Amino acid sequence: MNNQDEQRLEECYCPAQKALSILGGKWTLSIIRELSSGTKRFGQLQKSLKGISPKTLSARLQELEKQAIVTKEIYLEVPPRVEYSLTTKGESLKKILLDLVKWGTENLRSED
Amino acid sequence: MNNQDEQRLEECYCPAQKALSILGGKWTLSIIRELSSGTKRFGQLQKSLKGISPKTLSARLQELEKQAIVTKEIYLEVPPRVEYSLTTKGESLKKILLDLVKWGTENLRSED
Repeated sequence: MNNQDEQRLEECYCPAQKALSILGGKWTLSIIRELSSGTKRFGQLQKSLKGISPKTLSARLQELEKQAIVTKEIYLEVPPRVEYSLTTKGESLKKILLDLVKWGTENLRSED
Repeated sequence: MNNQDEQRLEECYCPAQKALSILGGKWTLSIIRELSSGTKRFGQLQKSLKGISPKTLSARLQELEKQAIVTKEIYLEVPPRVEYSLTTKGESLKKILLDLVKWGTENLRSED
């Protein structure tokens, strides 16, 4: 960590706070995890994420699209096929999330 | 990222989810930011974090102590002096939080 980074860190964690508020939404990490193994259709996501309602899945995907973490491709077939993938930005999150998985595994108390 | 890491990432983001739920609490990142520049007393924290109630500050500090991210030292003076610091675990979070600050700065849309 260089001095400029340290200074930025001390000034404001706001972008981190915003990232946490997006990523901390129920199901959001699970959606990113599902898409990290490749493109998925809406129905496939719903099937993998047992218990998620179509309304919630749709809202979470829209939020992730808005932040350009996820991209949606619509194929004009009958019936139309809609596929979701991680963008490059989304892919760049994986490293940080893995660091957080590691940190959490090593440092958080499981009984709580 | 090696294969074992990738596999772990695909299996479960649960520890990351838990970390997000702790770090995502209102004021929590700000408390960590304040303590990242060094030990602080309760009153100093309250003064820096404009708008936090003593009750909330106390609850957040207790949660961070429980997770061994923050440590409390009590000095038996009159009046007693109580100081809070980041533990080694807390310090190890700084790198991840900085990565998240960077990622958020580069990737999140500020107008939202």
